Amino acid sequence: MVVFFNGEFLEKENVAISPDDRGFLFADGVYDVVRAYRGRLFRWQEHLDRLAHGLKELRIEGVSLGGLEKIAFQLLKENGLEAAEATLYLQITRGATLRSHRFPPQGTIPTVYAEANPFTPPIELRKKGASAIIVPDERWGRCDIKTINLLPNTMANQRAFEAGAFEAIFARDGLLLEGSHSSILFVKDDALLCPPLTNFILPGITRNVVLSLASTESISVHIRPCLENEVAEFQEILMLGTTSEIVPITKVNGISVGTGVPGRIARKLQSAFRRITQELKSRS
Amino acid sequence: MVVFFNGEFLEKENVAISPDDRGFLFADGVYDVVRAYRGRLFRWQEHLDRLAHGLKELRIEGVSLGGLEKIAFQLLKENGLEAAEATLYLQITRGATLRSHRFPPQGTIPTVYAEANPFTPPIELRKKGASAIIVPDERWGRCDIKTINLLPNTMANQRAFEAGAFEAIFARDGLLLEGSHSSILFVKDDALLCPPLTNFILPGITRNVVLSLASTESISVHIRPCLENEVAEFQEILMLGTTSEIVPITKVNGISVGTGVPGRIARKLQSAFRRITQELKSRS
Repeated sequence: MVVFFNGEFLEKENVAISPDDRGFLFADGVYDVVRAYRGRLFRWQEHLDRLAHGLKELRIEGVSLGGLEKIAFQLLKENGLEAAEATLYLQITRGATLRSHRFPPQGTIPTVYAEANPFTPPIELRKKGASAIIVPDERWGRCDIKTINLLPNTMANQRAFEAGAFEAIFARDGLLLEGSHSSILFVKDDALLCPPLTNFILPGITRNVVLSLASTESISVHIRPCLENEVAEFQEILMLGTTSEIVPITKVNGISVGTGVPGRIARKLQSAFRRITQELKSRS
Repeated sequence: MVVFFNGEFLEKENVAISPDDRGFLFADGVYDVVRAYRGRLFRWQEHLDRLAHGLKELRIEGVSLGGLEKIAFQLLKENGLEAAEATLYLQITRGATLRSHRFPPQGTIPTVYAEANPFTPPIELRKKGASAIIVPDERWGRCDIKTINLLPNTMANQRAFEAGAFEAIFARDGLLLEGSHSSILFVKDDALLCPPLTNFILPGITRNVVLSLASTESISVHIRPCLENEVAEFQEILMLGTTSEIVPITKVNGISVGTGVPGRIARKLQSAFRRITQELKSRS
């Protein structure tokens, strides 16, 4: 498998992340995952903008994001994924330097790592739905940035897995926020409810796509806080993500959501989502 | 420089952390820093116990901590630090495996990395004191574990540096908790005040040493929450850490603490601390 690391394309086993890398020592970096549909990058610019925003917030300088698209296509090509279903993983850290909490000296070069992997869409999961649990949110106060400071996300996801569930939904101060690796929307009174963006919610790109699809599909959308104690009243719950796309959550904490099967709004949005990914134009 | 990596002693530039390492991807690991005084490890067992506790809390299995002391001494030896002032850095992650939020398959081998570095004690800092700023605590909810989920700590430390200060003290809900890489104690009415251990405070090993020294030095100690709005009433503030030992904080947010110079209790505890490190016996 050929990957990209600090300016070079090389076999993955030849990558040597330094033990001084601030990604390894301090979780000091950002990442993103992009979907390629038959070799076509989906919402590339939005992912790039989010990376740029994260770098700006963390004040990681000296990365030329403009070159990443070419790298992405090169990775797809090198790994025989030019026309395949695939994902791209991108990670940028503040670089490798003598360990110190404070930022490294100016001129320290950020670490840039990228790889492309073949992807098998979770068709059954989207069709049949998945279950989730609600867990207390122990994450830090800047979940609006897509950083690699992800330990609590992994712990929550594992907790879901051990409970026989697919996702963990974070609750804080009675509010349902987002999943351990997804955005979460709710349906009540036939309207789509979407928690407002705060420092505890990542501006999900699939979330944006779905909100825009809801509008074209004439589904009412209300941006408003969603409460843990409303769960019994939700007709549907939708889990959104770059690889999941739209997965209906049919059970929460072991209790059926609505009728316990994927609902009308989830299915309608899934169809609309499928249309736009099928219509994706190849790069000119 | 010879370091230890997954069972081998090798030159640091030959270490290749995998891009799949969960330390690099998810901050999924623990670390510790131990001081060697003239080649003698200080409070080794306490550091080891803390590492063991962290591994248990994160459920990282399959690391034999018993072998680490031999590795530590070997690192000191290989780097000519057998009789030197030095620090040991130890990091253990959940290992390298296909990226997935949930824990890797059973049998995945944790990554163990260790290095020894010569250390120059910050004599002037301890003598003259340092300044600090108070910053809002944006960290996650398990700061009682010494994990590498440290992005907010680096951001806070950098903020202090840019404000001309040496340390950032985290405040949450009006409580002063700890520094970005230190424990913090306070002095009021000639007594040492120590914030009680919670999920937002690391059980500092230097903190334990100092509390015990306070007892032998007949300094009153009160374990109680310390408030941000008490700052003006503190006679002294003490910053504690493995490498700092005891550094008097003489200014907070640009305002003098007490008389603005290192206080009586800090100096008394520094003397007592120096005595125990000078009396350290060599390994039998």
